[in-house]
Amino acid sequence: MFSLAALCAQISPADPECAGQIQQTIDNKTKPLGSLGQLEALALQLGKIQYAREGHSETLAPINPAIAVFAGDHGIAAHPISIAPQAVTQQMVMNFIHQGAAINCFCRANDIALTVVDCGMQAAVDVSSSDDFIVSRIAAGTEDFTVDSAMSLNQLNRALESGGNIAQSILDTGVNALGFGEMGIGNTSSASAILAALLNREAVDTVGVGTGINQQQLAQKRCLVQQGLDRVAKLPELSLSDPVVALQQFGGFEIAHIVGAMLATARARKVILVDGFIVSVAAAICVKLAPACRGYMVFCHASAEAAHQLVMRELKAIPLLNLDMRLGEGTGCALAVPLLRAAVSFYNDMATFESAQVVL
Amino acid sequence: MFSLAALCAQISPADPECAGQIQQTIDNKTKPLGSLGQLEALALQLGKIQYAREGHSETLAPINPAIAVFAGDHGIAAHPISIAPQAVTQQMVMNFIHQGAAINCFCRANDIALTVVDCGMQAAVDVSSSDDFIVSRIAAGTEDFTVDSAMSLNQLNRALESGGNIAQSILDTGVNALGFGEMGIGNTSSASAILAALLNREAVDTVGVGTGINQQQLAQKRCLVQQGLDRVAKLPELSLSDPVVALQQFGGFEIAHIVGAMLATARARKVILVDGFIVSVAAAICVKLAPACRGYMVFCHASAEAAHQLVMRELKAIPLLNLDMRLGEGTGCALAVPLLRAAVSFYNDMATFESAQVVL
Repeated sequence: MFSLAALCAQISPADPECAGQIQQTIDNKTKPLGSLGQLEALALQLGKIQYAREGHSETLAPINPAIAVFAGDHGIAAHPISIAPQAVTQQMVMNFIHQGAAINCFCRANDIALTVVDCGMQAAVDVSSSDDFIVSRIAAGTEDFTVDSAMSLNQLNRALESGGNIAQSILDTGVNALGFGEMGIGNTSSASAILAALLNREAVDTVGVGTGINQQQLAQKRCLVQQGLDRVAKLPELSLSDPVVALQQFGGFEIAHIVGAMLATARARKVILVDGFIVSVAAAICVKLAPACRGYMVFCHASAEAAHQLVMRELKAIPLLNLDMRLGEGTGCALAVPLLRAAVSFYNDMATFESAQVVL
Repeated sequence: MFSLAALCAQISPADPECAGQIQQTIDNKTKPLGSLGQLEALALQLGKIQYAREGHSETLAPINPAIAVFAGDHGIAAHPISIAPQAVTQQMVMNFIHQGAAINCFCRANDIALTVVDCGMQAAVDVSSSDDFIVSRIAAGTEDFTVDSAMSLNQLNRALESGGNIAQSILDTGVNALGFGEMGIGNTSSASAILAALLNREAVDTVGVGTGINQQQLAQKRCLVQQGLDRVAKLPELSLSDPVVALQQFGGFEIAHIVGAMLATARARKVILVDGFIVSVAAAICVKLAPACRGYMVFCHASAEAAHQLVMRELKAIPLLNLDMRLGEGTGCALAVPLLRAAVSFYNDMATFESAQVVL
């Protein structure tokens, strides 16, 4: 039987004794100290992750990336607070399968393997399970969290377990950096509610325009998220700031899958590539459940969604990219992969001051 | 005989009639309107550049990138205002030739051709001219601009002409996006003086820590740059804000080469990839000489050098990357190339709402 506590207990920090040696390798490269900025921090982090067990080496293993996009539908989407009808979740999943979406293009452009997961859309698609498309349907969408818990505890555990298994199966193919994307009409509402719960904030602080709703929709979205928060706050047996409570109550089968998958990736000591707002909220849940996860996370893109900054501050994270995107799908992860490869390339291949006879 | 005015007159704007059609193609892709942020602006710009002559097409040509790193020495470097002695310019050029520098690693990682140009280092290196290493020595370094013009008008014209020829020869191999990097101990002083002259500012506004000097060096660097500005301001026949005057007086053979090369790239209607502070100052000179250049420029990285923001504001530019780097060499260009490829990939390969049957 799945135990979240057991999974979390298996995660150990990416904080090896050789961190100083990794930094020294970086500092000996032919460049002014620190002049590669965030790429140096990234190389250090990759080194810490890769050498967590095996001790220091002069080279980093090449990045072998994959991205998994988790899709699910949301009861909250019954309200008119999205730019698109709920059916678009499924339409976009078909678009992923037919290679037509932005994430498909960016994965092809950067040589990244892509897996799509149906975590519980309203209707199943008529495509059989394969390496590229995994059926892991918890239910036909979550409940409307303004009136009820988005999912049952049993559903939550199934989603967490399945997410973990999916991640492990991808990592078993030799992937050492796993990116996380999502698709689900209504899921910024879900993520905003979870974030407000985790940070003890009001809906007004965490609800934004998502992919581009108008002011009237924004006002209604804030009302509904606050209604959900107020509903749970009234339940004496539950603590809103408990990440398991927040996840079950405000849901997202895709968000729960991502949490399980991230925890499994950290357990396997592999790089977790974090996309924009929704995926970052999943990352915040993971860090609250198992703080050691944080060391495995690379934040890829600063979302245009305002509340993303709240999550980044909470996680002390500076995303690699800031391209004003607000699409999700894991697009930020795909675009950041070349920066990881660049970090590996300078760490492995740059001359040292000594070898190049450069004397500062 | 070389004529700067004639070169500038051959540059026409990247502003075709089909701009609206390009935007429509972008807007029909399966994503919320504008949700790919800066990548959409980039795709639009690439379309405008590519279709400047040929009319609209549904696809963009693949990016075929190259980077040219221009190196030169500076008379100002006789003063102790850099973290490294002047000999490091030559040592780093040898490092480029031996494939050991950061720019070599990033070009390899992103499949970018690299050319290194000796524009006038203190001493020549014992390497013969080839496609990868071009000797275009104007002199053994510029004069100290605090006491004299950095170069003669004849030297300036030779540097501009040679830069243009080098760019054209690279573009003739089929390159359609040319990135510009620089190496030259002392060249942030040169760039700061030029920028102050162009913007009618004081040295204190444009001189920063470069690759990492201390506060005492910073104070002296500001003094020296201001001394140079004051020297030229006293010459009644010269106007400081004239870009040709600023370039000749405060110099940089590598900066002059870059200006000539950028103008030739704009003339050829190809993408100009602009690196950090020094290359951006060269870009500002080009735009002042021929405003139509601006449309061909993609700004790749927001330098950690504070005055870079001044240039970006002047050029109304938002760089693609902000990785807190301060290295130069064209490293920002190399790291931005995958984003250009991503822009092309979504423009060419993403499904439309119609083709994917997605109904928002």
